[in-house]
Amino acid sequence: MPHPTPASNSPADKFTFGLWTVGWQGRDPFGDAVRAPVDPVETVHQLAKLGAYGVTFHDDDLIPFGSTEAARDQHISRFKKALAETGMKVPMATTNLFTHPVFKDGAFTSNDRSVRRFALRKVMRNLDLAAELGAETYVFWGGREGAEYDASKDIRDALDRFREGFNTLTTYCRDRKYKLRFAIEPKPNEPRGDILLPTIGHALAFINTLEHSDMVGLNPEVGHEQMAGLNFVHGIAQALWHNKLFHIDLNGQRGIKYDQDLVFGHGDLLNAFFLVDLLENSNYQGPRHFDYKPSRTEDMAGVWASAASNMRMYRLLRERSKAFRADPAVQAAMKDSRVAELALPTLAKGETYSDLLRDRSAFEDFKADATAARGCAFVQLNQLAIEHLLKAR
Amino acid sequence: MPHPTPASNSPADKFTFGLWTVGWQGRDPFGDAVRAPVDPVETVHQLAKLGAYGVTFHDDDLIPFGSTEAARDQHISRFKKALAETGMKVPMATTNLFTHPVFKDGAFTSNDRSVRRFALRKVMRNLDLAAELGAETYVFWGGREGAEYDASKDIRDALDRFREGFNTLTTYCRDRKYKLRFAIEPKPNEPRGDILLPTIGHALAFINTLEHSDMVGLNPEVGHEQMAGLNFVHGIAQALWHNKLFHIDLNGQRGIKYDQDLVFGHGDLLNAFFLVDLLENSNYQGPRHFDYKPSRTEDMAGVWASAASNMRMYRLLRERSKAFRADPAVQAAMKDSRVAELALPTLAKGETYSDLLRDRSAFEDFKADATAARGCAFVQLNQLAIEHLLKAR
Amino acid sequence: MPHPTPASNSPADKFTFGLWTVGWQGRDPFGDAVRAPVDPVETVHQLAKLGAYGVTFHDDDLIPFGSTEAARDQHISRFKKALAETGMKVPMATTNLFTHPVFKDGAFTSNDRSVRRFALRKVMRNLDLAAELGAETYVFWGGREGAEYDASKDIRDALDRFREGFNTLTTYCRDRKYKLRFAIEPKPNEPRGDILLPTIGHALAFINTLEHSDMVGLNPEVGHEQMAGLNFVHGIAQALWHNKLFHIDLNGQRGIKYDQDLVFGHGDLLNAFFLVDLLENSNYQGPRHFDYKPSRTEDMAGVWASAASNMRMYRLLRERSKAFRADPAVQAAMKDSRVAELALPTLAKGETYSDLLRDRSAFEDFKADATAARGCAFVQLNQLAIEHLLKAR
Amino acid sequence: MPHPTPASNSPADKFTFGLWTVGWQGRDPFGDAVRAPVDPVETVHQLAKLGAYGVTFHDDDLIPFGSTEAARDQHISRFKKALAETGMKVPMATTNLFTHPVFKDGAFTSNDRSVRRFALRKVMRNLDLAAELGAETYVFWGGREGAEYDASKDIRDALDRFREGFNTLTTYCRDRKYKLRFAIEPKPNEPRGDILLPTIGHALAFINTLEHSDMVGLNPEVGHEQMAGLNFVHGIAQALWHNKLFHIDLNGQRGIKYDQDLVFGHGDLLNAFFLVDLLENSNYQGPRHFDYKPSRTEDMAGVWASAASNMRMYRLLRERSKAFRADPAVQAAMKDSRVAELALPTLAKGETYSDLLRDRSAFEDFKADATAARGCAFVQLNQLAIEHLLKAR
Repeated sequence: MPHPTPASNSPADKFTFGLWTVGWQGRDPFGDAVRAPVDPVETVHQLAKLGAYGVTFHDDDLIPFGSTEAARDQHISRFKKALAETGMKVPMATTNLFTHPVFKDGAFTSNDRSVRRFALRKVMRNLDLAAELGAETYVFWGGREGAEYDASKDIRDALDRFREGFNTLTTYCRDRKYKLRFAIEPKPNEPRGDILLPTIGHALAFINTLEHSDMVGLNPEVGHEQMAGLNFVHGIAQALWHNKLFHIDLNGQRGIKYDQDLVFGHGDLLNAFFLVDLLENSNYQGPRHFDYKPSRTEDMAGVWASAASNMRMYRLLRERSKAFRADPAVQAAMKDSRVAELALPTLAKGETYSDLLRDRSAFEDFKADATAARGCAFVQLNQLAIEHLLKAR
Repeated sequence: MPHPTPASNSPADKFTFGLWTVGWQGRDPFGDAVRAPVDPVETVHQLAKLGAYGVTFHDDDLIPFGSTEAARDQHISRFKKALAETGMKVPMATTNLFTHPVFKDGAFTSNDRSVRRFALRKVMRNLDLAAELGAETYVFWGGREGAEYDASKDIRDALDRFREGFNTLTTYCRDRKYKLRFAIEPKPNEPRGDILLPTIGHALAFINTLEHSDMVGLNPEVGHEQMAGLNFVHGIAQALWHNKLFHIDLNGQRGIKYDQDLVFGHGDLLNAFFLVDLLENSNYQGPRHFDYKPSRTEDMAGVWASAASNMRMYRLLRERSKAFRADPAVQAAMKDSRVAELALPTLAKGETYSDLLRDRSAFEDFKADATAARGCAFVQLNQLAIEHLLKAR
Repeated sequence: MPHPTPASNSPADKFTFGLWTVGWQGRDPFGDAVRAPVDPVETVHQLAKLGAYGVTFHDDDLIPFGSTEAARDQHISRFKKALAETGMKVPMATTNLFTHPVFKDGAFTSNDRSVRRFALRKVMRNLDLAAELGAETYVFWGGREGAEYDASKDIRDALDRFREGFNTLTTYCRDRKYKLRFAIEPKPNEPRGDILLPTIGHALAFINTLEHSDMVGLNPEVGHEQMAGLNFVHGIAQALWHNKLFHIDLNGQRGIKYDQDLVFGHGDLLNAFFLVDLLENSNYQGPRHFDYKPSRTEDMAGVWASAASNMRMYRLLRERSKAFRADPAVQAAMKDSRVAELALPTLAKGETYSDLLRDRSAFEDFKADATAARGCAFVQLNQLAIEHLLKAR
Repeated sequence: MPHPTPASNSPADKFTFGLWTVGWQGRDPFGDAVRAPVDPVETVHQLAKLGAYGVTFHDDDLIPFGSTEAARDQHISRFKKALAETGMKVPMATTNLFTHPVFKDGAFTSNDRSVRRFALRKVMRNLDLAAELGAETYVFWGGREGAEYDASKDIRDALDRFREGFNTLTTYCRDRKYKLRFAIEPKPNEPRGDILLPTIGHALAFINTLEHSDMVGLNPEVGHEQMAGLNFVHGIAQALWHNKLFHIDLNGQRGIKYDQDLVFGHGDLLNAFFLVDLLENSNYQGPRHFDYKPSRTEDMAGVWASAASNMRMYRLLRERSKAFRADPAVQAAMKDSRVAELALPTLAKGETYSDLLRDRSAFEDFKADATAARGCAFVQLNQLAIEHLLKAR
């Protein structure tokens, strides 16, 4: 394994991984598991050695569904010990509301009310643990909240129930003084034919209707937006603009198809570059969380190598972004492209629409054809970016 | 032409068409115009004969870009006369901010500030006309607001400018006491590589940040959401849930590809059926607006026939939806599928999360496996819906 | 369950199902099994009751991977007994070369030669059984023959090995006088990032290079072509044109996303209609094979109901196609659209290119603009088709 | 313009451009032209200065549709002069069978026989010119050969007519001793809803049915295959495997959407890298032809800069591919991944299936679980490739 020596990553990078990522056994719709289960304790130690900052988990990753109280305590205690030994953090936790067949029609939005109640209880229980472990973010991926058939579920009712669930749970956390903020993770489809809140946009709109909407933001995932053919950089920019980027899931996807969960940067490389460029030039301070699946072709050595590749890719892209921004030729090209002019308000300070109406240069005397003739010089700027990405300058 | 006699459609159906739809000359990225321009006056008369309720227009559809004031008045006056003669309404108008090369990098979000100012003025001018013609809705399709290259535009700045534009224009309308409401029309891409506010969700989220957000809603288009692989029925349901379905663009699209603008129902027929089923069972009272393009293979007789086909499809689907809802077998199947149970709050009236925590039946005594074993009977329900669509029951 | 009485389907319809279809337990990438395994013997009896003509199987559907010889004989003998009792046929069989982890990098094209050898042996063994059971078609779905990473496999070598595999197996069958014909089932992706022979076209081209190419044809699947955004009707038409439609997999898919395997007609309904219209007006005499998955939301009653829905959909679409073709208005519309003129050779009988060069009406005197002005009347024809599909005429 | 000095490209690179690429005026489905027409003579001179090897053309790029004989001669003579002055070659030519409205329903497969005859004549005329100019390849992009509606065209008849057209034209060329080879350019859709021969595979299969199939190969385009979500590298590998890569169109596309025609490498960068790696390690000797469109945002300076970017990208990727192949760590990783083992026949030299049946190690004694446990180490290899692409090693 030629790449990253552990020393090269640092907890300051805030690289985190889900237990379920390196722990994925490779079961897919057409194939059986290819790898043995990984003990979460081992995961904590291995990732610490690779220089990660922390781990994240679904309740069932740590404590198998249906465990007794005693077994549960035992799992938690071993996990805490590993954290203590390594200094690894748990900045995020989440609930598995999708694996057990009881969630086949959803959790918060199952047509079956008893399932919805069970789901709320399952979340509350894990919120307690998340708070105890010091997590700051609690993720909600509603992978089973959706439908295959339009007659089987009134989406307006489903959104009512979804909102009810969030309102109940934010109240619960507030009352208990948990420091947790919630982060919704959108996805357009798979495992349901169509999933509720399919994109960053739909989730942002939904959040606005919540009782404690300040507590609720997003956990967007690279591949999920790309499964709808959307530009992930645009989506993250809009999330940042709404101050709702609470957490982020980094991975790779090669176009509109099944959810691939490749290593970060192993999908759309250009978009990954611009994503890192955006994140590093934003006020986002949270973890760089890798939510990927080590390919089914890999053995455990390959699993750990692939974990390292995620971090290596992020650091490489960060380095290239810095060089890109620092290059005077890039700054000149950005000026040619008038990038900064977009930050300038369209109306001058204090100008009203009445003033604008009186400004003949804005309309009556505006030279549309001459203005149209000016080139934007966008292709050159893009070429420069790619050359920095490729270290060709 | 075998189908709809004019008598079969009625203004009460509120069927409307854009001047640019039947007026499309068939120019596409690889081909020249195949049909002569259509005089808007003729369009008004023809559509009236076919039983439509009204027409809609972009400023430049009615008044060619760059017309003198005198020519402008003449165009408007002829158009009004045709409306008066036919009783046709103009429930919606919009601005062409995409055809002229000056908008090649956008209108409200062009990097060039002078273009942004010109765009606002162009809109204000047509708002006056829209108000004068009695329009209730003013649509904003920001087809050029976007980018091909991630370095060329800071999306956060672009959203600032987009918001500034809307705030300026809503203030303008309020001050002038125009009855107009604004409706944003999302689209994921084409003609830009990625368009801002690419889906219903993104636009809903954006609207929440506006100064007069109550005045601003959506004009979703069937094909635009389907170009992102999203379920249009889900999108419309969420728009209705937010009380933001101000207008709707009906047409047909066959999957994720270029924007096809087929006749309504000539794309994803099942989704069109469930869309009509949703609209007719919602509080949406607005026009059923067809924003389609008569295929380039058609002559003018084919154009008018295709216009009629849109209305015929809507009426057919409406009739099938009624039969579907009225069928006792469907009602029984919906019960089997527990569709109504989703309207029931998850917590009982007055129940708190503390009560839920105390309810051992919700968690400690919950029979997950037994509950999971119950079938949802969704496929049968879907089969019934299709059989009603096909008039096979 | 309101629909098809068993009496309504008949063995003459040649409806067949894979054991793995109704037997699917609902395990997906994010969820555990929701249904118990179904005994193949029960499947045979249930499908017979529903009016099916036969069943098909992968070796491992009938005989679990790794069974002893004795267990294998027992499984086969029980299965034969059920066939004899019901009169059900086994017109097709296939090999499971994807579930066991050993196939994680493919079977015939695994980089590991020992896997390739094992795969050939596994196929040969099941070819013997298929022949014994009277199957006429042997399907090859190379779901694991592919890659996620372009450096990990030389596709030219892979195609060499794929060809070698087919050549070995066709020789084997010829030598043993098996009546089996081979049918390749293309798929673009899932479970591999990119699968070899991703479409009908790629497989047709490959077949031309085989030693006994006359023995090898296609088994196209509705959803697989639609996962690449391709028109399935066009694909089947091309397969028929090459005389290579040996078998067909019917199901439903809602656009470009993960493989959905819905009930036939529950996806793109219009395309399903035109598919049945094409099949029923072609020389295809083979089974109408449903390769679908009963949704994970269904219990066993829902499974059998969904099986019945597939057959019901086919019969409905067949009935509508007949009415469409018989309608004089349709025939007139087809004439308007010059559909039959396409069957007329472009050069007259005996005409050479030299004659064509001398024909001034073909070029020098050709009226391009006047010819272009003629409408094709395609939209009306499509509207008529939809109205027949909807029984609205 | 910061990048490639003309000196850096060389005719030996065989970089070529279509007249229609840099000459694209920026007319799109929603917008008017943004740039003036470019004189082909200027294009020849400009591209020569940038270091290109040659230009290619559609008949109508050089000689406007409907020109008189005299005007035609004049256009050709000026063009020849420019070629002579610059030493630029014309390795490929093609026919415009899509812009004029007469081709709205296709050329070789129009339902209108007179259009089919006209199309053949239009091609023959330009074949003469292509041969005269020394072209080696004649491209057929059947962009209008397709349909929006399944009832409007029998695809089997259409394929008959398509074949008839090719057979007529190959005979014409053979009789005239033209050195031209034909290259079909597949595309899945746009401008038609579905285009015939939508992928590399479909075209390869079709070619096998032609009278002079040895004369006919492919001209695949990056973006066209990616519009169907297919891996372009896989497609080119299969084309090479069939010895049918006669020419290639390089450009960029960002996923499944409208045809973008970006600069080569400005779309899926990883796939572009592996494409160059494949081409440079194959027997393909033809031009590296850029079929792109300078973005509509660019002025003429931007057009020429974007042309240079295409060549720059190719050279960069070629350089990185060389370093990748030369790195001993890569060679070791390839060994770990058993890449070369796939070139080894599955059966030993002289081994028959009977020998294989007797080899107990291949089946009876095969250790499936142990073999499955070996990792393929594909992710590391991919990481190494990306690091070479990024010059990070």
